[in-house]
Amino acid sequence: MVYKKITLIGSSGESFDAAVDDAVDRAEETLSNVHWVEVEEMGVELASVDDREYQVEVEVAFQLDQ
Amino acid sequence: MVYKKITLIGSSGESFDAAVDDAVDRAEETLSNVHWVEVEEMGVELASVDDREYQVEVEVAFQLDQ
Amino acid sequence: MVYKKITLIGSSGESFDAAVDDAVDRAEETLSNVHWVEVEEMGVELASVDDREYQVEVEVAFQLDQ
Amino acid sequence: MVYKKITLIGSSGESFDAAVDDAVDRAEETLSNVHWVEVEEMGVELASVDDREYQVEVEVAFQLDQ
Amino acid sequence: MVYKKITLIGSSGESFDAAVDDAVDRAEETLSNVHWVEVEEMGVELASVDDREYQVEVEVAFQLDQ
Amino acid sequence: MVYKKITLIGSSGESFDAAVDDAVDRAEETLSNVHWVEVEEMGVELASVDDREYQVEVEVAFQLDQ
Amino acid sequence: MVYKKITLIGSSGESFDAAVDDAVDRAEETLSNVHWVEVEEMGVELASVDDREYQVEVEVAFQLDQ
Amino acid sequence: MVYKKITLIGSSGESFDAAVDDAVDRAEETLSNVHWVEVEEMGVELASVDDREYQVEVEVAFQLDQ
Amino acid sequence: MVYKKITLIGSSGESFDAAVDDAVDRAEETLSNVHWVEVEEMGVELASVDDREYQVEVEVAFQLDQ
Amino acid sequence: MVYKKITLIGSSGESFDAAVDDAVDRAEETLSNVHWVEVEEMGVELASVDDREYQVEVEVAFQLDQ
Amino acid sequence: MVYKKITLIGSSGESFDAAVDDAVDRAEETLSNVHWVEVEEMGVELASVDDREYQVEVEVAFQLDQ
Amino acid sequence: MVYKKITLIGSSGESFDAAVDDAVDRAEETLSNVHWVEVEEMGVELASVDDREYQVEVEVAFQLDQ
Repeated sequence: MVYKKITLIGSSGESFDAAVDDAVDRAEETLSNVHWVEVEEMGVELASVDDREYQVEVEVAFQLDQ
Repeated sequence: MVYKKITLIGSSGESFDAAVDDAVDRAEETLSNVHWVEVEEMGVELASVDDREYQVEVEVAFQLDQ
Repeated sequence: MVYKKITLIGSSGESFDAAVDDAVDRAEETLSNVHWVEVEEMGVELASVDDREYQVEVEVAFQLDQ
Repeated sequence: MVYKKITLIGSSGESFDAAVDDAVDRAEETLSNVHWVEVEEMGVELASVDDREYQVEVEVAFQLDQ
Repeated sequence: MVYKKITLIGSSGESFDAAVDDAVDRAEETLSNVHWVEVEEMGVELASVDDREYQVEVEVAFQLDQ
Repeated sequence: MVYKKITLIGSSGESFDAAVDDAVDRAEETLSNVHWVEVEEMGVELASVDDREYQVEVEVAFQLDQ
Repeated sequence: MVYKKITLIGSSGESFDAAVDDAVDRAEETLSNVHWVEVEEMGVELASVDDREYQVEVEVAFQLDQ
Repeated sequence: MVYKKITLIGSSGESFDAAVDDAVDRAEETLSNVHWVEVEEMGVELASVDDREYQVEVEVAFQLDQ
Repeated sequence: MVYKKITLIGSSGESFDAAVDDAVDRAEETLSNVHWVEVEEMGVELASVDDREYQVEVEVAFQLDQ
Repeated sequence: MVYKKITLIGSSGESFDAAVDDAVDRAEETLSNVHWVEVEEMGVELASVDDREYQVEVEVAFQLDQ
Repeated sequence: MVYKKITLIGSSGESFDAAVDDAVDRAEETLSNVHWVEVEEMGVELASVDDREYQVEVEVAFQLDQ
Repeated sequence: MVYKKITLIGSSGESFDAAVDDAVDRAEETLSNVHWVEVEEMGVELASVDDREYQVEVEVAFQLDQ
């Protein structure tokens, strides 16, 4: 049993929780065996967006097919 | 005045805030002098639960009796 | 183009998201060019407040006038 | 569901693997719900022992009773 | 000459060495130019397995085709 | 031979050395086999005390009974 | 909007700047939406090359298609 | 309630404690609401001074006016 | 003698060296006693600029007036 | 009593334990007072060797003559 | 002008300041150009000594002859 | 095969690349088997020099004679 981890950055105009869900949702669209997620960084982007964009960098661990 | 710190991991099906409160609630059930809490790690468990479980590892600092 | 970063700690009786917004709101009162914000530390204060106070330390990056 | 983590240092005259098992064995003598273990530090003691003593510091996570 | 690094987690019921080999074996099944591997994290899983499962997270560096 | 580590925060109105001793004194009141101590954090509290309170967070390692 | 980050190591016989450009050039050959790059490690290889090879490990962040 | 943190480096020919006090004294000359101080780095300068100069880098947290 | 440190991010379309100089130049426009500079982070911005913008975050230490 | 620490990297075609022993053996050939060893990094080299070479970077602490 | 750094651990039965001085004294016995010293770790040894031994690990930077 | 690592700080009035080369040049004057170099810290000295001195701390790994 081998896992692989990839790094995604999700975003949301609402909250950090929603930004994490954004990244996990995207991971689950293409990966069928996501086991756990670790939060690496949290931030807010202001300059390039209208209001505030909450961003969370996560590591997504999924099981590789055997 | 001496403080002690213990490490707890709270969880919630709803949000990271609720996972932190889960750990603090548990600490206050058995400790009467909790002074502050530091967030150490945040993650999401998916493999062993029905949906998503938000987990937060915290250090809980409480004052020891003199 | 040079940016400067300052360190603020926002707080809220409600949530970590609100504590971040508290710090960003304060930064934008006196700084006109806030570009992004990085979350550095999260914690909960209990001893010196009535209930729980969520606190978040952030680094706020803003563009210096040329 | 709340987990607690404690820090133990196991040792062995044979190998690092045996030093980890030493700490986990000890944890399971007194804790019934050990869920996982994280290796924090590895070292070798020479001055106070006859030969070489392999030592591993681990964090042991166990589920608290509800 | 450009290298890429990916993150894998190997596991073994026997030892940490075997868990590292497990991840490297898997990497070499699909990658022909693995150059080196760095150990990032070591742990033991107990809750979801019969006995003890040694797990090692590694970064695997391989050369990209030119 | 297994060691356990706990985290204490000692304090003193005089110096950092005295704050470390404060934590070690407390540990030795209840633990008979303290082997070594590691300094983790140092700080000064001003807001909630009359003058300055020097605080030091330490990890205290003691040998568990066999 | 979700970003993904990958880790590349570029190299150059000339300078660290050229090693970074080497990695970014490679990333842009296959990825159309590279947004930013973070330098993680810098080093010089001497044993396996004629002279000195400057190497830089970078994380490359690009936007995923929606 | 928002706090700001600034970074100062105090020095003393006598001791690390006096170097910390040197930085805190300076902070309190111009800031009326210093709440706490965190020690970041400690060092000794020898080349540019007659004897030994103990230096301590601290982060000083003070409450901003509302 | 007390030093203060501030955090700046310089940028350049040419090189990391020029990005550091950009930040130091800016610091010396308003500060007369800059003693040393520490490099904290290096990166490249691509999305919001025409070509590549090299960015370096530095801590600038200067002596406070007595 | 003053200790000095040096950094060595041992290697083995067999295991990480043997790679640590390789470095400690070498240290003890020339140093008579090795007190303890700390593991800093673990890795596997593949490109420049026939099979797999396990490598461990350690810090070796020994007592200086008085 | 090239500097070299070595790692020493000084000790004292009295204080951390004296432990640092112990290491610096030893460095200056054999090195004529010590420029600065950085404190890396602080601890207290209890098991192998009569009372408490304060220990400080430092990096000592000295100028190499040209 | 055992490697040893030493820590050097090179400097240059021109660039960070030249400061690294300065340290590597010095290492190769006295060591015949330098294998690789890792950059640890980068900084700029201003107070004690006429203009700006770029400094880079590196770890130099070389193979010990068998």
